Amino acid sequence: MLSREENELLTRTSPGTPMGELIRRYWIPALLSEEIPAADCPPVRVRLLGEHLVAFRDSQGRIGLIDEFCSHRGTSLFYGRNEECGLRCVYHGWKYDVNGNVLETPAEPGESQLKHKIRHKAYPCHEAAGVVFAYLGPKDKIPLFPKFPWLTVPSENVIVTKFSLECNYLQALEGDCDTSHTVFLHRGNRGGGVEAPREDPTPVFEIEDTWCGLRAAAIRRVGSDKQNVRVSTFAMPVIGSVPIGKTINGRLDGFLAVYQVPADDYTTWRYNFRFKRSELMTEEEHYSDKCQVGSDFKLFANRQNQYLLDREKQKTFNYSGIDGFATQDACVTESMGAICDRTKEHLGASDTYVIALRRFFLKAVRDFTQGIEPPGLVFDPAKNDFSAANCTSVTVPLDESWKAVEQQVYGT
Amino acid sequence: MLSREENELLTRTSPGTPMGELIRRYWIPALLSEEIPAADCPPVRVRLLGEHLVAFRDSQGRIGLIDEFCSHRGTSLFYGRNEECGLRCVYHGWKYDVNGNVLETPAEPGESQLKHKIRHKAYPCHEAAGVVFAYLGPKDKIPLFPKFPWLTVPSENVIVTKFSLECNYLQALEGDCDTSHTVFLHRGNRGGGVEAPREDPTPVFEIEDTWCGLRAAAIRRVGSDKQNVRVSTFAMPVIGSVPIGKTINGRLDGFLAVYQVPADDYTTWRYNFRFKRSELMTEEEHYSDKCQVGSDFKLFANRQNQYLLDREKQKTFNYSGIDGFATQDACVTESMGAICDRTKEHLGASDTYVIALRRFFLKAVRDFTQGIEPPGLVFDPAKNDFSAANCTSVTVPLDESWKAVEQQVYGT
Amino acid sequence: MLSREENELLTRTSPGTPMGELIRRYWIPALLSEEIPAADCPPVRVRLLGEHLVAFRDSQGRIGLIDEFCSHRGTSLFYGRNEECGLRCVYHGWKYDVNGNVLETPAEPGESQLKHKIRHKAYPCHEAAGVVFAYLGPKDKIPLFPKFPWLTVPSENVIVTKFSLECNYLQALEGDCDTSHTVFLHRGNRGGGVEAPREDPTPVFEIEDTWCGLRAAAIRRVGSDKQNVRVSTFAMPVIGSVPIGKTINGRLDGFLAVYQVPADDYTTWRYNFRFKRSELMTEEEHYSDKCQVGSDFKLFANRQNQYLLDREKQKTFNYSGIDGFATQDACVTESMGAICDRTKEHLGASDTYVIALRRFFLKAVRDFTQGIEPPGLVFDPAKNDFSAANCTSVTVPLDESWKAVEQQVYGT
Repeated sequence: MLSREENELLTRTSPGTPMGELIRRYWIPALLSEEIPAADCPPVRVRLLGEHLVAFRDSQGRIGLIDEFCSHRGTSLFYGRNEECGLRCVYHGWKYDVNGNVLETPAEPGESQLKHKIRHKAYPCHEAAGVVFAYLGPKDKIPLFPKFPWLTVPSENVIVTKFSLECNYLQALEGDCDTSHTVFLHRGNRGGGVEAPREDPTPVFEIEDTWCGLRAAAIRRVGSDKQNVRVSTFAMPVIGSVPIGKTINGRLDGFLAVYQVPADDYTTWRYNFRFKRSELMTEEEHYSDKCQVGSDFKLFANRQNQYLLDREKQKTFNYSGIDGFATQDACVTESMGAICDRTKEHLGASDTYVIALRRFFLKAVRDFTQGIEPPGLVFDPAKNDFSAANCTSVTVPLDESWKAVEQQVYGT
Repeated sequence: MLSREENELLTRTSPGTPMGELIRRYWIPALLSEEIPAADCPPVRVRLLGEHLVAFRDSQGRIGLIDEFCSHRGTSLFYGRNEECGLRCVYHGWKYDVNGNVLETPAEPGESQLKHKIRHKAYPCHEAAGVVFAYLGPKDKIPLFPKFPWLTVPSENVIVTKFSLECNYLQALEGDCDTSHTVFLHRGNRGGGVEAPREDPTPVFEIEDTWCGLRAAAIRRVGSDKQNVRVSTFAMPVIGSVPIGKTINGRLDGFLAVYQVPADDYTTWRYNFRFKRSELMTEEEHYSDKCQVGSDFKLFANRQNQYLLDREKQKTFNYSGIDGFATQDACVTESMGAICDRTKEHLGASDTYVIALRRFFLKAVRDFTQGIEPPGLVFDPAKNDFSAANCTSVTVPLDESWKAVEQQVYGT
Repeated sequence: MLSREENELLTRTSPGTPMGELIRRYWIPALLSEEIPAADCPPVRVRLLGEHLVAFRDSQGRIGLIDEFCSHRGTSLFYGRNEECGLRCVYHGWKYDVNGNVLETPAEPGESQLKHKIRHKAYPCHEAAGVVFAYLGPKDKIPLFPKFPWLTVPSENVIVTKFSLECNYLQALEGDCDTSHTVFLHRGNRGGGVEAPREDPTPVFEIEDTWCGLRAAAIRRVGSDKQNVRVSTFAMPVIGSVPIGKTINGRLDGFLAVYQVPADDYTTWRYNFRFKRSELMTEEEHYSDKCQVGSDFKLFANRQNQYLLDREKQKTFNYSGIDGFATQDACVTESMGAICDRTKEHLGASDTYVIALRRFFLKAVRDFTQGIEPPGLVFDPAKNDFSAANCTSVTVPLDESWKAVEQQVYGT
């Protein structure tokens, strides 16, 4: 439960808002590389943190992410011409490079100095794992591009799926930081029907802060003498990772990292990064998320069609009566309303991780407005290590320390 | 004509508004019984007085009308599972009974007392005439379910049709309290063409207050020596009845009672109760309203398609060029705008009843905010008699008292 | 660049706003004559300067342009019956003539004086060139109908095309007062491809005020020793004219005059008046604009379908990749957003005319609020001469005065 003021503080991300400025200090996904697949390809609109931007790839393959509206008279550069190393407005021919320099103002007289006085808004970009990341913060505060586990494996070992949600980023992120719902919402997805949960539905949580976010261990009894411990992580600014995937030699080989990026305060871009360290992704894995998403980055089953809810299926086959993990998550998250009213909640032990996330966020944003630097930023290449964001899974005897076993299996 | 303040006072019905709280003191239609036809059937969304609710019928056939959003984290219970005597949220499995008790919180540890601390919003319901009525007011103020004439005949003698209007409830209700428009708007519907009204278009009105609303007599000359008197009624909170229907032995056998229930301030649920005391409804009567309405409770001919207005028909066949009484009413009512601007009106003698309705409402709501109990509520079974809401029709010699004749024909 | 206050001042046109009241002092296009083609034809809705109106042609052919909402109870008169010299509301039969007199109130008793106390809002209309012009200002300030060049030629010599734009009128009007964009946005429309402009893209501007607006000369070098001078004009309140069309004996025979009429602050009615003095319009000319517009007065290629932008065509055929002058203009104008944010612009020499327009408007509206009469209004028939709004085109030796030549060719 949050106060109205806290709820506003955490959910508003437009320019000038505390949370918006905080998120702008990090590298965040802006679009997929495949949306601008080749040099001089058509530009695309990008909605990010309430801003209207346009992305293009110039003749040299460099990516521009710039203000959608021409600095001259405000015409949309989405309709622009992506020409020889610049994007040109079709109204009067002003041309911009990827850095926001105005290269030409051909309707102005030759002696005009106008173009030298203008810096068009432009954000640095970096491609990784088939995603164009962008940094929207102050130029003098730009951090190193973070070496998250899923961004350091070969690209064949990671699959990224992007789709939009019709709600605020925070409730989407809370869904990723909600270890408890899986045995309910997703019950029956892999068989087993709707009746009995596949595992203990009331795990014990142990949460700890890391330098870049949170580690949340969900501890479940297995049989009479063992416990299974699965560690989810949160990393600044909007990354929730969950320990799902194949285990090799008792070690989780990869996992799922999810970014919930605000398009605006009522729309979120969800990016699923599924990766494995030791194996290529299979074709089946490739489509497990993508098969739910259209080329417009919307879920086929969505709010407008009630997620294709099948009441008969709900009675007999799976718990929700809805197909697909991602679509099920979208249903429970979007149906809270565009911005969830957190003043009306009643939280319990199952919400321990969600509560920790909000506490972490509230401290980070309040510190930030006091001038304290945000957590999880790296400026020294020697410290660019995000293994704290790793998810793990171990099963250990009840009388043994799971942390010791975890360290043994996964390293420090 | 109302002042802007009066117009706001009468038209706003969300929780906390004076008119909204006043209407909440009465039993009002919430949905049709057929929308939740059987035990454990799918739940449905109900929008009522600006609130988001969900209705379901539990395993024992009891009806629940509860807050749409789960008390836990706010997910919509519309997507919930209607299980063994309770509606269960698909996110974490919280289960509610029809009274708003939290029966289970399966993601919480066994010792958790959380569920005992929560009362989910739930409203009492009562079924009559195939309609689920609800009471949204304070628990300690609940009145008896009112014995309106149309609610005391056998169900085979009453037909209820529900549809939505895209406007505020008050202008819809004013249409029911507008005896004058019939000979204009509806002219030609039953033949006779567009030229001459079927009866005197300028009746004399005699209005009187009753303990539960208004009685409005429209007195029209018939021939040289007689007068026809038809009495319409208004009953709190939103019921306008009109004396249409079959006359048996000089006595109106039934009539049409209309509820105009606010969904929100810009949308109204209209419920038509047509009933006869002595006869079953015929199949033709059954469809006279329903044939205009789709399964989505919208008029087929509506604002979006300009009510299928036919200009040629308007010149030659009927006055409006639009088919169907209900659709004609919707046209003139919705086309005023979402909330009619009553500061710009010019009212005349034909608006006597409408003026009386507003006066009655303004007094009731102002009294209510002063702590005076609202009119038309019954707490003593011996007084549960709503014959004051009866419509009548009599034709009497000019020199005779129509009231005396009315009493003789219809009883006290 | 304007301040936020100036931008608001110039773009808001509803009743009571300074700019709205200023524009109301002039005759402006309200609808096409063909929309109400015959006596007693169906009425049509007219949205103008934020007002909801309805237009009809009465039995005598007179045009009424009156408040859409009945003075009685507010029902839309669009659904009314256009009968024997009056428009009749279908709710209670109130009947209005073209001057706003209430002719009948048939639901009122015979002795009622109500109708004599009411003046329904009604605006004077005047037909010219197949367009119904209206005057929405104070009755005692009505000017003469202006003898603009395009309104004084025979109707066969002028073609009017009407369509709507999804943006504020001012940015649309600025597009007409933007001489610079033609060689960019419209390049390739008449062949020549996308590469080289057909003429000097950086003309020198000479702007002068007239008694009714502005004259803007764009001066371009032709070869080594000549200059081409084309004069565009702006006339109050919303008329931008451009010197395009056939030249006969070195004289521009007609030109294009464009009205940008506010429907509301986010929607504009654009009226193109193309005319020739000496020749009838050809069939081809007739369809050059109209072929882009549907019967709903919307461009076929519009914001919703991204103006049917063809990226391949943009690379090879024409500059914008969009077909049609009017559609290209709509793209660059609407894509600025509903109301362009003029606080973020960077204006240059190419915007000289746009800057002059804003200066002229700001002075006119500020003067107006100080009680100074607006420019360009005629009350004396002897002075009803709008030749100052004429567009011209001359090509003269560099060492000759273009103004002298212009005067010689076109007269004073």
